[in-house]
Amino acid sequence: MSDDRGARHVTLAHGNGGRFMRELIEQVIAPGLASASLDVTLDAAVLGQTHEVLVATTDGFTVQPLDFPGGNIGSLAIHGTVNDLAVVGAEPRWLTVSFFIEEGLSMDSLARYARSMGAAAAQAGAAIVAGDTKVLPRGQGGGLYLAMTGVGVLSGGLKLGMRHIRPSDAVLVSGSVGDHGVAVLLARQDFGMKGELPSDCASVLPLARALRGLDGVRFMRDPTRGGVATVAHEIVAATGNGLTLNAAQLLVRPPVQAVCEMLGYDPYYLASEGRIVAVVAEEQAEEACRRWRALPEGRDAAIVGAVTAGPPRVVLATELGGQRLLEELEDDPLPRIC
Amino acid sequence: MSDDRGARHVTLAHGNGGRFMRELIEQVIAPGLASASLDVTLDAAVLGQTHEVLVATTDGFTVQPLDFPGGNIGSLAIHGTVNDLAVVGAEPRWLTVSFFIEEGLSMDSLARYARSMGAAAAQAGAAIVAGDTKVLPRGQGGGLYLAMTGVGVLSGGLKLGMRHIRPSDAVLVSGSVGDHGVAVLLARQDFGMKGELPSDCASVLPLARALRGLDGVRFMRDPTRGGVATVAHEIVAATGNGLTLNAAQLLVRPPVQAVCEMLGYDPYYLASEGRIVAVVAEEQAEEACRRWRALPEGRDAAIVGAVTAGPPRVVLATELGGQRLLEELEDDPLPRIC
Repeated sequence: MSDDRGARHVTLAHGNGGRFMRELIEQVIAPGLASASLDVTLDAAVLGQTHEVLVATTDGFTVQPLDFPGGNIGSLAIHGTVNDLAVVGAEPRWLTVSFFIEEGLSMDSLARYARSMGAAAAQAGAAIVAGDTKVLPRGQGGGLYLAMTGVGVLSGGLKLGMRHIRPSDAVLVSGSVGDHGVAVLLARQDFGMKGELPSDCASVLPLARALRGLDGVRFMRDPTRGGVATVAHEIVAATGNGLTLNAAQLLVRPPVQAVCEMLGYDPYYLASEGRIVAVVAEEQAEEACRRWRALPEGRDAAIVGAVTAGPPRVVLATELGGQRLLEELEDDPLPRIC
Repeated sequence: MSDDRGARHVTLAHGNGGRFMRELIEQVIAPGLASASLDVTLDAAVLGQTHEVLVATTDGFTVQPLDFPGGNIGSLAIHGTVNDLAVVGAEPRWLTVSFFIEEGLSMDSLARYARSMGAAAAQAGAAIVAGDTKVLPRGQGGGLYLAMTGVGVLSGGLKLGMRHIRPSDAVLVSGSVGDHGVAVLLARQDFGMKGELPSDCASVLPLARALRGLDGVRFMRDPTRGGVATVAHEIVAATGNGLTLNAAQLLVRPPVQAVCEMLGYDPYYLASEGRIVAVVAEEQAEEACRRWRALPEGRDAAIVGAVTAGPPRVVLATELGGQRLLEELEDDPLPRIC
């Protein structure tokens, strides 16, 4: 056993259910999470009562590296969970987090990730109500993995789902695509490239809230793993309709474009972590776009495509007037980006 | 990329958000979970409405090996989550699971763990409503890690908590101690020992339900990591009272005793995964014990100790009439047992 335990790095002894684990939770993790609802002495947390419709989501986070421009695994985990609730039309209420900590992670890093989580949760108006820690032997953990669950309540009246999608519906994206994927790739420095592109990692709750009351909003999803092209494929697979995306309207930032050209990636398959893809009835698409553009996180929103009557495939209309098929993703272009 | 993907083992391509991931979830994981509530095309699951008080718990599972006599990581994860809800007096309703799968895990194993999860959830009357999968590169995952969150509803009237504990309260354990810890240790074969001891891994929900309506029940906890001694320390730390355990009443099965003697472990610090430690008002302790013994999972229940007026320490009264202090756990006697 190292002399380091209880000190500057996490050791296996911090995972044993005893004093070191209690101190790790009480002194390093819980203060950062800054949640008045978190009682570290309980097996289960009492959330209280609500008469609203409950929704739940769960997500694992294994991003490498743990820090990247514009965020870290902690902020990513909270935003990602909040966003999964936001896009079904819910308000996040309660969050739980399970930490899988690799032996050797510095206490300072862990405390910093916990603070990022606390700040992101507060911004979303959600409370971190329960947590768990496990320590993994050195070499079996990638530094830190997080598993989040979010429980929210459905906002009145919003009925979203792919089953509402019809041909001629418009497809909107709330901003540029692929920023998160490329930001993480540059942070890895595997390719000897450097860049200053920040991830778009952020809460999409303001964007989702802005569309409430628009009954033409059929469906929303945040284009994370697999990017906008994968969301398009999910829509096509579920509805049997076709979907056309217009390259001229899809904003790809110059650093994202440059990295994709150098490495042969397609930006439409790269992850965003602060964007929404929305399908909206044609006659309300302009209004939805206007509402998004009125927000700082939606100023680059655009109508980027449309659902078509068939065949069930995803077509990219290129800026030169051509068309190419966007195939369903098979090989992973960028593993471990979330 | 291996040719194996989509076939007999999990590959990195199964983590990319695309077709392979969808097939892994639809064909391998979801059928085992056998949950009608699980819609794999949604970002978040609609749970519905309830007017009862909600409680939530979260837990990570990193047991090594993934299979052990009496259970596997799948059944352990569900029972462990259900048990954390049961001991606060709740009925489990909804479960979420996050899979962290190491590249190379066999599809057969994954399907088997999912089936164990589905069976254990059904037994508890809980629905698995949301899931997520991430694939970790070979060497960074220990085969499989699971993160569970459980949401339940508090059963009417039950007010449990350490704040209700008073000196002279009795301490009960629902069965033998340390079985799970030793079963996992023997399954590892690190020590060249073989044995047929099954883990006690099981739902404690029937035991928890049996004590409902007994207003002298102050507090319950399942003695997992750190064992009965650690639960005793948590009580002492939270209440400022002392606690005495009687070795003559604490059932330690012969294989557990034998392993502890050979390896120098103390069985009171080893994990159980299907037991409850309960603190009950002295005058209702016999009734609580009688109710437990009427159940198959409680037939070895016993009153094993008492809360004392102080000083705040945990004392073991030995069978020879002596006393020894049970210190708070520091080094981990058996890492990765849950």
